[in-house]
Amino acid sequence: MSAVVTPDSALELSHWMQQPLADVEQALSRWVGVGAPAQLGEAMRYAVLDGGKRLRPLLVLAASEAVGGLREAALRAACAVELIHAYSLVHDDMPCMDNDVLRRGKPTVHVQFGEAQALLAGDALQALAFELIAPAADEPTQVPVATQARLCSLLARAAGARGMAGGQAIDLASVGLQLTEDQLRQMHRLKTGALLEGSVLMGAACAWVSDTARAALAAYGAALGLAFQVVDDILDVVADSATLGKTAGKDAANDKPTYVALLGLDGARAYADRLAAEAHAALARSGLADTRALAALADQVIRRSH
Amino acid sequence: MSAVVTPDSALELSHWMQQPLADVEQALSRWVGVGAPAQLGEAMRYAVLDGGKRLRPLLVLAASEAVGGLREAALRAACAVELIHAYSLVHDDMPCMDNDVLRRGKPTVHVQFGEAQALLAGDALQALAFELIAPAADEPTQVPVATQARLCSLLARAAGARGMAGGQAIDLASVGLQLTEDQLRQMHRLKTGALLEGSVLMGAACAWVSDTARAALAAYGAALGLAFQVVDDILDVVADSATLGKTAGKDAANDKPTYVALLGLDGARAYADRLAAEAHAALARSGLADTRALAALADQVIRRSH
Repeated sequence: MSAVVTPDSALELSHWMQQPLADVEQALSRWVGVGAPAQLGEAMRYAVLDGGKRLRPLLVLAASEAVGGLREAALRAACAVELIHAYSLVHDDMPCMDNDVLRRGKPTVHVQFGEAQALLAGDALQALAFELIAPAADEPTQVPVATQARLCSLLARAAGARGMAGGQAIDLASVGLQLTEDQLRQMHRLKTGALLEGSVLMGAACAWVSDTARAALAAYGAALGLAFQVVDDILDVVADSATLGKTAGKDAANDKPTYVALLGLDGARAYADRLAAEAHAALARSGLADTRALAALADQVIRRSH
Repeated sequence: MSAVVTPDSALELSHWMQQPLADVEQALSRWVGVGAPAQLGEAMRYAVLDGGKRLRPLLVLAASEAVGGLREAALRAACAVELIHAYSLVHDDMPCMDNDVLRRGKPTVHVQFGEAQALLAGDALQALAFELIAPAADEPTQVPVATQARLCSLLARAAGARGMAGGQAIDLASVGLQLTEDQLRQMHRLKTGALLEGSVLMGAACAWVSDTARAALAAYGAALGLAFQVVDDILDVVADSATLGKTAGKDAANDKPTYVALLGLDGARAYADRLAAEAHAALARSGLADTRALAALADQVIRRSH
C-alpha cells in the first residue's frame, strides 16, 4: 500500500474539509475570548483565530463522522482540542521554553502582548477547552452528560503529565542528550502523539462504538501522531522558515534529538511511510463503514514530507 | 451579629477539619505527579503537597456535607480545586508575573526547578484537576456522569478568563492605576473570589439542591471570597514575611491597588466584618439543616485579620 495520497482522494479531502473547517473557525470565533477582560481576550483570540491547519479538529470531526457521532459534541470537542494545542504553542514559544518569536508567520503571543499576558492567555485557553466540553447549566446543549464526562476525561489525560505536558517535560530534559529510538518515540508519543490520538478518541466518544472499533481508531491515532512528529523533524531540516511559518532549523540549533538525526533523512521518510501504512491498516480492521476522511488525513500528514 | 468566631465554634471547626484535611492530603499524595516524567512529577508534588491551608478543599467538603453530597465526588472536587489554586500560585510567582522567590516558607517552584519546569508543572496541574473530576473509563468511580460534567463546567468557569485567570489579567493591567472600589471589587471577584465561590458551588453540586439553597450558597461563597481578599490586603500590611510564609508588603512595593489603600486599615477591617455578616445571613436563608462548618470557615477567614 502506498502511503502517498492519490489525486482523487486528495480532491475528496479538500472537498470534505470545507464545511468542517468553516464550522470550526466560526465556533472558535464565537467562543474564544468572549467575556474575558479586554487585553486577555485579545491575546486569546490572537493565539487561536485565523491560523493553523486545524489538523486536530479535523481528526475529531472525521472520527466522529466515521462512528456517526453527535455533531454538536464533535464540534465542541474539536474546538476544545484546538485550544489545548494553541495554549501549548503559546507557552512553548515563551523565552523560558523555546524562546521563539515567529509562529504561523506572525510574532508570537509573548512578543505581541508581553510574557505575563501570554502566560495568562495560555492558562485561560486551557480552562476554556474544558468549558466548551461541559457547557454551563444555563447554556442549551444536546450533548449527553455521559459524553461530556468522557470528553473531559480524554482531553485532560491527553493534555496532562501523562500526555502532552509530560512529553514536553521529557523534551526539556533531553536537550543535548543522545536518545535511543525507543526514548525518542516515547517522548513524541506523549508530546505530540497524545493530543492527536486523543483527538481521534474524542471523535469516537461522540457515539457508542464497539471495543474493536475504538481500539482500531486508537491504533490509527497513535500511528498518525508519531508520523506527524517524524514529518515535523523532516520539515525542520528541508523547509525554510517562510514555508513553515515558524523558525526552521531550530531543532539542530537547540541540539534537540530528532528522527532525522537518528535515522537520516531517507530513513525518516521511510519510517513515516511505514507509520502511514500502519494507520491505514488500523482503519481497515475497524469495521467502520466509511473511514475515507480519516484515511485522507493520514495521507495528508505524510505527504507534507514528500 | 459578631463576625468574630466564638471559642466554642472555633474548637468545633478544628475538630471538624481533622478528617477532611487528612483525606485531602492523602488523596493529593495518591494522585499528584503519579505517572509523570520524573522531574515534572517532582515539581508538581512540590507545588501541591505539604503546604497551604487547604481552604478551598475545606469549602468544597463543608458545602457537600451541608447538602448531603456524595463523598467521593466531593473529595475529587476538593483536590481538583486545590490543584487549580496551586497551579495559579506557581505561574503567579514566575519572573514575568510577580517574580516571587518565597511561598509557604519554601523557595518557589521556578527557583527550585527552573522556569520552564515551573511553567509545565502549572500546566500539568491544571489538566490533572480535570482528570480527577472525570476519571478514565477504566478507573472505578461512584460519581454519576452528570455530577462529573457539572463539576467540570463549574471548575472550568471558575478557573478561566471569566474567573481566576481573568481576574489576574485585570490585576496585571491595573498596576500603578487608581481603581475605584467597584473596579477593585470586580477584579477580586474574579481573581480570588471565583475559585472560592466555585469551591462552594462544586460542593453543592455533589448532591441535588434546591434553587434557593444553591443561590444562598453562591451568595455565601461570593461574600467569603471577597472577604478573603480584603483580609489578604490587610495581612500584607500588618504581618511580616515569616508569619505569612511569603514576601510581605509586596502589594505596596508593586504599586498594586488594595483595600487598605482604598479604605484604610480600619475601614478594610470593618468591610471584612460586613462581608462575614453577609456570608452568615446567606447561610441562614439557605434552608439547609447544618451549615455550621461553612459558618465556622467564614469566621476563620475573617479572624485572620484581627
